[in-house]
Amino acid sequence: MVRGGPVSRQAPGPRRSLAGGPPAGTVERVFVLGIDPGLSRCGYGLVRRDEAGPGTVVAVAAGVIETDPRRPVPERLETMQGELEALLSEVRPDTVVVERLFFQVNARTAISVGQVSGLALAAAVRARCDVVEYTSNEVKQAVVGYGAATKEQVQRMVATVLGLDEDLRPPDVADALALAVCHLATLPLRRAIDLAVDR
Amino acid sequence: MVRGGPVSRQAPGPRRSLAGGPPAGTVERVFVLGIDPGLSRCGYGLVRRDEAGPGTVVAVAAGVIETDPRRPVPERLETMQGELEALLSEVRPDTVVVERLFFQVNARTAISVGQVSGLALAAAVRARCDVVEYTSNEVKQAVVGYGAATKEQVQRMVATVLGLDEDLRPPDVADALALAVCHLATLPLRRAIDLAVDR
Repeated sequence: MVRGGPVSRQAPGPRRSLAGGPPAGTVERVFVLGIDPGLSRCGYGLVRRDEAGPGTVVAVAAGVIETDPRRPVPERLETMQGELEALLSEVRPDTVVVERLFFQVNARTAISVGQVSGLALAAAVRARCDVVEYTSNEVKQAVVGYGAATKEQVQRMVATVLGLDEDLRPPDVADALALAVCHLATLPLRRAIDLAVDR
Repeated sequence: MVRGGPVSRQAPGPRRSLAGGPPAGTVERVFVLGIDPGLSRCGYGLVRRDEAGPGTVVAVAAGVIETDPRRPVPERLETMQGELEALLSEVRPDTVVVERLFFQVNARTAISVGQVSGLALAAAVRARCDVVEYTSNEVKQAVVGYGAATKEQVQRMVATVLGLDEDLRPPDVADALALAVCHLATLPLRRAIDLAVDR
C-alpha cells in the first residue's frame, strides 16, 4: 500500500540528464529520490534542484510504502519490490539515495531492513539511476552539521531547507527527504573529487 | 556469473503441480530449490522427489551464482537478482527454500546476506513458487538429527541421501542442497499439521 506523505506525490516531469550539460538558456533540473528502507514502512522523498539561479531545492513528492504485517514476509518483500519498481518508473529520478546499513543498529528489525535495502538498491540500478548510500551519521553531518544530531533536529532542518512549514511525518518520510538533501549538499564536493581523480 | 557445481545444471523437465494430485499411473514429481544466500557466492541446489515407489530423492542441478567483489554493491545486487530470476525461470521449482537469517550470525557479511535473501524471497514469490525458510539449526536437525551438527556432517549426510559420492564443493552448494533435503524431510509433518489445522 502506498500512502502519500506531507508533500503530495506527483510526477516530476521529463527527466533531465546531467551527462551532456543543459541546453543554453534552460534550467537544468536534478531529481534525487531518498529511500529509507523498512518492511512495514519504507519512506521515500523526491527532491528537485534547479541548477540555474540560487539553486533552490524543492520537495516534489514524498510518502511511505507500507506492507501488511499479517502477511508472510516473502509476500511482503515481493509487494515492496513491486511498489519500489512502480515508484521509480513513475518519478524517474537521476539519483537514488539509500541509507547505508550498519550491523549494530536496530537489531530487532535489521534483517528485514537489510532485505528491503537490497530490493531498493537492485531496483534503482535496474532503473538505470545512479545509486548512492550514506550512513545515518553522514546524513546528520551533512544536514545538521554534526553526526550526533537528534532525529528531531534533522527533521526540522530538512523542513527548513525544503521550505516546508508542516510537520514531516511519519519520520520515515523525513529520513528519506534527509537522504536526498544530504546528497545534494555533498554533491559539489563529490564532483570536485571526481574531477581531481580524473585529472 | 553462474558457475555449475558438482551436479550438472539441467532443466528439470515439465513442472508438475501437487495441487490436483497426479494422474493415475504417472509418477508425481516435486521440485525443490534450496538457496543459500550470499553476495560473493550464492549457492543453489535443485532436488527432485518422485512420489511413486520408494520416494527417491535426486539432485538435479546445483551450483553457485557469483558476483564480482570489485564492482559496487548495488550493481552486484542487481546482477544477483537477474541471475536468480533466470534460474527460477529455467528450473521452475514447486518450492523454494531459503535459509532464515538470524541477526547474530556472521556479523561481517550479515547485511549483504540479508540483502540477497530479500532478493531471493521476492523473486521466488514473483515466480509463483511456494516459499519456505528454515534456520541453519532446523536444517541440521532435519538432515543429521541434531542441531549442533558440524558443516562437514551435514555435507556428508546430504551426499549420502542424494547418492552422490563426490565432494559437495563449494560448501554453499552443499548448504543449498541441505535446505532442499531438509524441506523434503519435514514435508510429511507439515502436511499432517496442515490437515489437522484444516479439520
